[in-house]
Amino acid sequence: MSKTYVFGHKNPDTDTITSALVYAYLKQQLGVDAEALRLGTINNETAFALEKFGFEAPRLTDTVADADAVILVDHNEFQQSANDIKDVLITEVIDHHRISNFETANPLYYRAEPVGCTATIINKLFKEHQIDIPANYAGLMVSAIVSDTLLLKSPTCTPQDIVAANELAAKAGIDLAEYGLAMLKAGADLSDKSLEDLLSLDAKEFVMGDAKVVIAQVNAVDVNDVLARQAQLEELLNNEVATKDLDLFFFVVTDILNNDSIAVPAGVLATKSALAFGVPLVNNQIVLKDIVSRKKQIVPALTNVL
Amino acid sequence: MSKTYVFGHKNPDTDTITSALVYAYLKQQLGVDAEALRLGTINNETAFALEKFGFEAPRLTDTVADADAVILVDHNEFQQSANDIKDVLITEVIDHHRISNFETANPLYYRAEPVGCTATIINKLFKEHQIDIPANYAGLMVSAIVSDTLLLKSPTCTPQDIVAANELAAKAGIDLAEYGLAMLKAGADLSDKSLEDLLSLDAKEFVMGDAKVVIAQVNAVDVNDVLARQAQLEELLNNEVATKDLDLFFFVVTDILNNDSIAVPAGVLATKSALAFGVPLVNNQIVLKDIVSRKKQIVPALTNVL
Repeated sequence: MSKTYVFGHKNPDTDTITSALVYAYLKQQLGVDAEALRLGTINNETAFALEKFGFEAPRLTDTVADADAVILVDHNEFQQSANDIKDVLITEVIDHHRISNFETANPLYYRAEPVGCTATIINKLFKEHQIDIPANYAGLMVSAIVSDTLLLKSPTCTPQDIVAANELAAKAGIDLAEYGLAMLKAGADLSDKSLEDLLSLDAKEFVMGDAKVVIAQVNAVDVNDVLARQAQLEELLNNEVATKDLDLFFFVVTDILNNDSIAVPAGVLATKSALAFGVPLVNNQIVLKDIVSRKKQIVPALTNVL
Repeated sequence: MSKTYVFGHKNPDTDTITSALVYAYLKQQLGVDAEALRLGTINNETAFALEKFGFEAPRLTDTVADADAVILVDHNEFQQSANDIKDVLITEVIDHHRISNFETANPLYYRAEPVGCTATIINKLFKEHQIDIPANYAGLMVSAIVSDTLLLKSPTCTPQDIVAANELAAKAGIDLAEYGLAMLKAGADLSDKSLEDLLSLDAKEFVMGDAKVVIAQVNAVDVNDVLARQAQLEELLNNEVATKDLDLFFFVVTDILNNDSIAVPAGVLATKSALAFGVPLVNNQIVLKDIVSRKKQIVPALTNVL
């Protein structure tokens, strides 16, 4: 029987990991020999969700071309995908991001919707196929929505995400607000993280115009947990810029209680990156008032300026 | 109210024109100020379908950036789209082709499915939105499916297309086989066409590796209607290659009664293009036995070799 891998992006977050598990389950119900994979280390938030609903992390890999086909969830840009993504047949993409640096030789099933979370789309797909979602899988899907929308408070959150989150929380038998805050706090606990960890935890690479850009984001209950170490942080950022030949490393710390962020940029485009938000670069920090979404707020603003 | 244009590819065929009309209608029912447009001349087959179901052709344009947003149907590759496609916000794509040379700055609704015809996907979307399809719009949708699948006989035709075609024919109150053959014959009537017309009628541009390729396809009841004029045809093809700096112009005549094709290639990659099909180039013709689909058979074969 032909083998299909299902996986999300590198530096996996909760939506990427749980959507791989949940969509692999849906495909299995449809008779596909599907296996969920992951392309990187599980973060504290995702570990909390997997533990809560009784799942093991998917198998770790960095190559996928031994499969007959692959399904991408929660991403499409090749630089965020498996290293050998160009060597394998992509039959499906289920995603909620912009489309860029993606192409196929053949027609495929591509389902992107401008909603806050991949799980919200997968919830529809279960209905379209008339397949029930078991309680533990519903729990994973709630976790994804809470994570991507910061408990329904991010500007990426749509009415569809809110409806899906409530529906899935009921199915999972959990209290959405209580569970959601506990999960976010687990993810924002930076006490066991080195600055090196924070840089790579949720870093994504983008090509904007001619510029090579990395945007990393960490959630914190207190942004000073990170910013108290700014001198060391900048040194590490400059190292990354030099090693990876980046034009910009845009490091964002998001305050999950107040829904604001502070960015520390590095690279030749650091000053220009502040312009994207109409604020000055002060102490090499950019204050991002009411900004919490990389996808909806940070990437478009930087893309426009770069 | 913000204006949304809905349009298909350049050198429009029946699926592209009717899907623009039908999807604009669906969006209007959902409260969107949508207008269908076209990027080129209506062919004989499409004119037959529009006439039959009482529609005017959509407004002709080559620029779209005056809209607030656009929706692409039946295509995604920018070189097949409006000239100023990069200057406008793309909010949706409804398509059944591979994805290539397409990107957006923002998340969007992208619905591609590997089925024979865009109308088959739009038929699902009407159901998902619980909106009825009027008989005349159902007629347009049947026309699209007949056109793209050569009356359900092309290898691109899927069980979903067959179900949709029968369902829509019933809704339109027509006999599928009888109407379908009449429409295909109207399109295959080449008597009023110059060779120049035939070259551009359904020509699409592709980038394959480093090669710039145009593939044009015409349907004929008798392929000798075209091939009797091969010497002139080759002269025109070589002109196009020189003018547009192409590596390959792959001209395909498809016999709609026997479901075979013959290709006449021009450009530096002409000999190599025959290799893609495992047959020799004889009299500068490539005999394409059982091949009728540009998308499913010709593009993948050429992409592999180039």
